[in-house]
Amino acid sequence: MTVFSFFKINFFLLAIISISFLLPIAVALYYGEFEVIHAFALPGVFCVIVAFILALVGKKKKISMIPKDSYIVVAAAWGFASFLGASPFLISGTIDNLADAFFESVSGFTTTGATIFSDVESLPHAINFWRCQMHWLGGMGIVALTVALMPLLGVGGFQLIKAETTGPEKGKVTPKIATTAKILWFIYLALTVIQIILLKIAGMSWFDAICHSFSTLGTGGFSTKNTSITFYNSPAIEWIITIFMILAGVNFSLYYFLVRGKLGEIIHNSEIKAYIGIILVTGIGITFFISDLYPTLSDAFRIAMFQVATIISTTGFASADFALWSSSATIFILLLMFIGGCSGSTAGGIKVIRWVVLSKQTENEVKKLLHPHGIFTIQLNGRVGRKDVVFSVAAFVFFYFFLTMITTAVATLSGIDLISSFTAALAMIGNIGPGLGAVGPVENFGFFESGIKWWFSFIMLAGRLELYTMFIFFMPSFWKK
Amino acid sequence: MTVFSFFKINFFLLAIISISFLLPIAVALYYGEFEVIHAFALPGVFCVIVAFILALVGKKKKISMIPKDSYIVVAAAWGFASFLGASPFLISGTIDNLADAFFESVSGFTTTGATIFSDVESLPHAINFWRCQMHWLGGMGIVALTVALMPLLGVGGFQLIKAETTGPEKGKVTPKIATTAKILWFIYLALTVIQIILLKIAGMSWFDAICHSFSTLGTGGFSTKNTSITFYNSPAIEWIITIFMILAGVNFSLYYFLVRGKLGEIIHNSEIKAYIGIILVTGIGITFFISDLYPTLSDAFRIAMFQVATIISTTGFASADFALWSSSATIFILLLMFIGGCSGSTAGGIKVIRWVVLSKQTENEVKKLLHPHGIFTIQLNGRVGRKDVVFSVAAFVFFYFFLTMITTAVATLSGIDLISSFTAALAMIGNIGPGLGAVGPVENFGFFESGIKWWFSFIMLAGRLELYTMFIFFMPSFWKK
Repeated sequence: MTVFSFFKINFFLLAIISISFLLPIAVALYYGEFEVIHAFALPGVFCVIVAFILALVGKKKKISMIPKDSYIVVAAAWGFASFLGASPFLISGTIDNLADAFFESVSGFTTTGATIFSDVESLPHAINFWRCQMHWLGGMGIVALTVALMPLLGVGGFQLIKAETTGPEKGKVTPKIATTAKILWFIYLALTVIQIILLKIAGMSWFDAICHSFSTLGTGGFSTKNTSITFYNSPAIEWIITIFMILAGVNFSLYYFLVRGKLGEIIHNSEIKAYIGIILVTGIGITFFISDLYPTLSDAFRIAMFQVATIISTTGFASADFALWSSSATIFILLLMFIGGCSGSTAGGIKVIRWVVLSKQTENEVKKLLHPHGIFTIQLNGRVGRKDVVFSVAAFVFFYFFLTMITTAVATLSGIDLISSFTAALAMIGNIGPGLGAVGPVENFGFFESGIKWWFSFIMLAGRLELYTMFIFFMPSFWKK
Repeated sequence: MTVFSFFKINFFLLAIISISFLLPIAVALYYGEFEVIHAFALPGVFCVIVAFILALVGKKKKISMIPKDSYIVVAAAWGFASFLGASPFLISGTIDNLADAFFESVSGFTTTGATIFSDVESLPHAINFWRCQMHWLGGMGIVALTVALMPLLGVGGFQLIKAETTGPEKGKVTPKIATTAKILWFIYLALTVIQIILLKIAGMSWFDAICHSFSTLGTGGFSTKNTSITFYNSPAIEWIITIFMILAGVNFSLYYFLVRGKLGEIIHNSEIKAYIGIILVTGIGITFFISDLYPTLSDAFRIAMFQVATIISTTGFASADFALWSSSATIFILLLMFIGGCSGSTAGGIKVIRWVVLSKQTENEVKKLLHPHGIFTIQLNGRVGRKDVVFSVAAFVFFYFFLTMITTAVATLSGIDLISSFTAALAMIGNIGPGLGAVGPVENFGFFESGIKWWFSFIMLAGRLELYTMFIFFMPSFWKK
């Protein structure tokens, strides 16, 4: 890959994002917010023009990529997109420094949902729309990446998904990736539209319904209200969002199978079974411990299920301040922060499948103590899994904890306490959004120093790209010919 | 193994512990504490008589054991010993209920060092002596178990040590175990004697010097003073204890190699290099963050190194209340709680070697992304390690975290906050002693409800016996013929 091809690919992507700027521009026109139009138009037109020139100049040149190049392109694309996403904040003057604007943009595209704004309700509609739209675009990007591209690269145990999906096979990548991605995006769009309609029926304005649906499907968490979903005080809205957060945390290949009528693949899927099991057990567990805090048991159950869904799917909407709960209830939140959603979904975190692999391996080790000469395999999705998946998963989880501890240490430099720092780190690397204490659901990330925000931005990107994609560049051998 | 053999083996061990009761009885006589002599004499004489009768009756019967039996014997031996260890507390009336007495005894034998006493200085000398003596005996037991027996069973990655030590080979177990164990115990005794003399020279009374040396070598943490080592306010004592805590956290096979002149084995040992590296890096890191809290830099460094040594070796002595530090300094303590000492030492925790294996595997995974067809091995101690060690280690660490989360949940039931609960869980499973917050170095475990104390006792034993030994009994297939 030449430097020219590198910029050509990246500006092609930036041009697509720039075209999507038409949506917030339309919002600005509708609400008469003419003073923010240039904030989208200037960077958008610039990117489209550059992309157009690069496409014209390099028309005849065929781009050849080796595997290494794909890491460079993926990392760079998310970096460039985040700078483009930050530009409307800076140009409109809603954010006055790059560290904050970049943090907000990365938080958007990585579908984290941690914000630096303490008062989002004072922002122009177009800006709020763009925040939620970033979630939606980021979610779309990550589904394509993890379902279609990463299995190919075998990043951190994702060769597992490769074996599961009917997705791309090495050798004839391009046509199949395109087909799979198209079907996945159609499903993604369909779910978004359904949620928008349901939220409208439940009483939201069209604007709020669209914004919150974008945030939900991307498992982001940005809201147009300072108090997030608490604002609406509506059980119907809470249940709709709960269900769609859970749906967004499911591996999108399963919807693909559903569309193609392959129900067997869904029934035998190990990850979805564990995912639903964890949601029910923790939901009921929390209900038990918070039942005395809320008027009725059904209130407690709704609030419990919402928090479980918002944390396991790594969305981060708030419908209750769980910082006020007893530590017996909060421990479930902490536990869910470690777990995350399903692989191949828009959710972040370690992912359910990795915990399934580790728990099955643990069972095997105990069996092996009893039968030292026995051969024990890991059964996944009703088939025998490949043993080397355990290697990848173990390494991934170790690396995840290692980065979490580093990020906790960085967070403590702001002077906040240990549980706030630790959960802030988990919230960043897992793309969750809120943590506990000083970074709880009713707080924001604005108070952190710039340097810490830059590190957080980097870690959000690393978490989103399954860690290795951002760290492979630190290997000296990466740069050797 | 018959039920008769089972009791014969266990009472043989109980008789040995009972004979060691002669030490606290001697202490009681010396200090004129005649009212506590029967607290040791009654259970001691009972166990010796029963053991004697069982030995006479079963004189001619040869005990045949299958591998399964060894798990039953090991688990039962620690359980029986803990009940025997609890009896002097109950009989003397220093503790008035079984839950507390059992907790204190388990905390002693597992070399945890968490106490239920708020005022140890009011206890009879003989009782304090016995508390520290339990640490010493427990440390001796665990060295024999992990260096000589567990490698044979392959518990949780311990086949690794098997490959390292010149210890027992399958088939001709008994004579070699005995020889290895004798040499190890001689080293253990020699280190204890040296420390006693040094502490005496540094200004401790003989009684305190013996008690604290017992606690140090066993990496326990029980003290004869309410404020632990803070009481002495002596840099010399703090440094001596720091160095011996670090020494006690080293794999005892290395001392074995040292005695036999095999220096190459020590120089190429991966675990000891990582252990020393972690101690230095965290020691200097803490010094940096606490330097403004103490009069001189050398004070800060001494206090930092003491806390690092007390936590990584899982001893748990206190020389400063790190609960008062900034969260940037405290994060190192939390990190060290996850790490633990070296395998084959008297320290608890996950153990350095397991983290070394996981970090090397992570490095391999990144390399594999760059060279998908490369074959990468794990180099340990200058040799190529067995790949299946990664399986055992991954399973072990997963299980460790799983139990830590369960134990955290149990701890929250007492109403304490999340970081106190979480570190209490880490302190129990890792046999450390103190945690942070409500279970910090100047606090005690007395306030927990009985049920929680029983669970803690179980988890201390599980942590001490590398988890599987206590959980294998929950496998239905264990009980099948």
